[in-house]
Amino acid sequence: MTAPHRAAVIGLGAMGGGMARAALAAGLEVWGADLDAARAAAFRAEGGLAGDAASLGPTLASAALVTLTGAQTEAALFGEDGLARHLAPGCVVLSCATMAPEQARALAARAAEHGLLFLDAPISGGAGKAAEGRLSVMASGPPEAFAAARPLLDAVAETVFELGPEPGAGSAMKAVNQLLAGVHIAAAAEAVVFAAKQGIPPATTLETISRCAGTSWMFENRVPHIVEAAYAPRSAVDIWPKDLGIVTEIAKAEGVPVPIAEAALARFRAAQDAGLGREDDAAVARIYAEAAGVTLPGGA
Amino acid sequence: MTAPHRAAVIGLGAMGGGMARAALAAGLEVWGADLDAARAAAFRAEGGLAGDAASLGPTLASAALVTLTGAQTEAALFGEDGLARHLAPGCVVLSCATMAPEQARALAARAAEHGLLFLDAPISGGAGKAAEGRLSVMASGPPEAFAAARPLLDAVAETVFELGPEPGAGSAMKAVNQLLAGVHIAAAAEAVVFAAKQGIPPATTLETISRCAGTSWMFENRVPHIVEAAYAPRSAVDIWPKDLGIVTEIAKAEGVPVPIAEAALARFRAAQDAGLGREDDAAVARIYAEAAGVTLPGGA
Repeated sequence: MTAPHRAAVIGLGAMGGGMARAALAAGLEVWGADLDAARAAAFRAEGGLAGDAASLGPTLASAALVTLTGAQTEAALFGEDGLARHLAPGCVVLSCATMAPEQARALAARAAEHGLLFLDAPISGGAGKAAEGRLSVMASGPPEAFAAARPLLDAVAETVFELGPEPGAGSAMKAVNQLLAGVHIAAAAEAVVFAAKQGIPPATTLETISRCAGTSWMFENRVPHIVEAAYAPRSAVDIWPKDLGIVTEIAKAEGVPVPIAEAALARFRAAQDAGLGREDDAAVARIYAEAAGVTLPGGA
Repeated sequence: MTAPHRAAVIGLGAMGGGMARAALAAGLEVWGADLDAARAAAFRAEGGLAGDAASLGPTLASAALVTLTGAQTEAALFGEDGLARHLAPGCVVLSCATMAPEQARALAARAAEHGLLFLDAPISGGAGKAAEGRLSVMASGPPEAFAAARPLLDAVAETVFELGPEPGAGSAMKAVNQLLAGVHIAAAAEAVVFAAKQGIPPATTLETISRCAGTSWMFENRVPHIVEAAYAPRSAVDIWPKDLGIVTEIAKAEGVPVPIAEAALARFRAAQDAGLGREDDAAVARIYAEAAGVTLPGGA
């Protein structure tokens, strides 16, 4: 019998917390770390390993960084008292935050200086799928990084898209997904208010369009939030100025036009400016409703 | 035994031709008319009724107008030698073209002057579903119009969305669908070229995104056309300046912002200006590719 795979999950928010618990449930030994001590303590109480980077780092086979931003990933790995110096050579780092491909490549280069393997491995699917161990992972990196990460990937992912040996490809594909996802959320809000202004209730729009050619994954996922006036954040407005900002930065650097992504980005920034940043991203509909003089469910 | 329902289908293009044949296959007696005499003759050869508006009009229980534009519907019904004067009172007119709700209401009022029932009944689903009798119909009108149209609806539609008694609601919902469908096609093209510029082949984008949260009905339907360089028109670029133009006209009249629809409209107009109007609407990707300096499959 081989020893169980020992993994760290750094960042125990909705996504990282779900991944850490899915890994535990799959029989891995898991150390969960978070800047929020209460989150880390809660995970230890559920069976997570006790210890710190210095004591546990050298024993890890893998470490998934599940922070909100690339800057946070960089700080957690390479900042003062960062994790990288404590990891044993051959340990694989999974970089799961949404970031520019260029930043993923830079992190991979620094990881290599520490003798670490690196997988550019952004994730998709939301908190529900994270908790079920059924995420999609858009991953790129050398075959030995995939091999080293396999036990953790098997525990947390339903689908692993293997996008080649070069770090950056995973993050590029995540940016493609976020371009579409962000546009589809804002367009769904635009369409629901456009319909409401013509006297069609949001529930009727949802019921009809979800069975027509105008539907999208995001339309079917987010319009129910508008219909139910459920703006407690499952995924917050604040995500989109960040992620569509990455898209427009890449577009500018590469010289490729993204006018529709820019139009969606402007709507999310307007929602942020209106104080809706911490609301569910479906609250972008409120920006449209206010401009159109339409009352949505919940009176907002 | 009751006599078979006798219906007319005016306009035998991809959608109307499919509907007329589906109605024949369902056992209805069907007169098919088209400005193109060869199309009409071909349908007669397959079992369509022989005759003209004067001889057959008074015998019809229903007449579906399946023209490209509202102006064409108006001309076919009420123009010089129009069909309306030949129909018997109580015959139901199904108005299937995409048009502004205001125009549908105006047509309904004129139909009432002739003693005709009227269903505002735009269709969705494409030529394939039309031929199979499996369209979606977004319909509004009085209950007696739905009742009179039922045999024809049963023959041509998989789903009939009943959107209330007022003409205009069907066309409004169709505009909502077209807002989303048009945005999703242009966004799919934007994302595919954004990916390609970063080295991700369109086939990889299709395979990955169609299983992620960034997917849409249109992404999965149209990106294969880009991957296969298949630009023979199943639905042409020219549709979108028309249909998104209806969306932006409604939006202007109602005072509701549609900036994302406007961004998509601008891309389809650019494609039209580049001479791609008669190509499949997925050819809007070529506009992005040219601007980005990207070569898509097929070398275009």
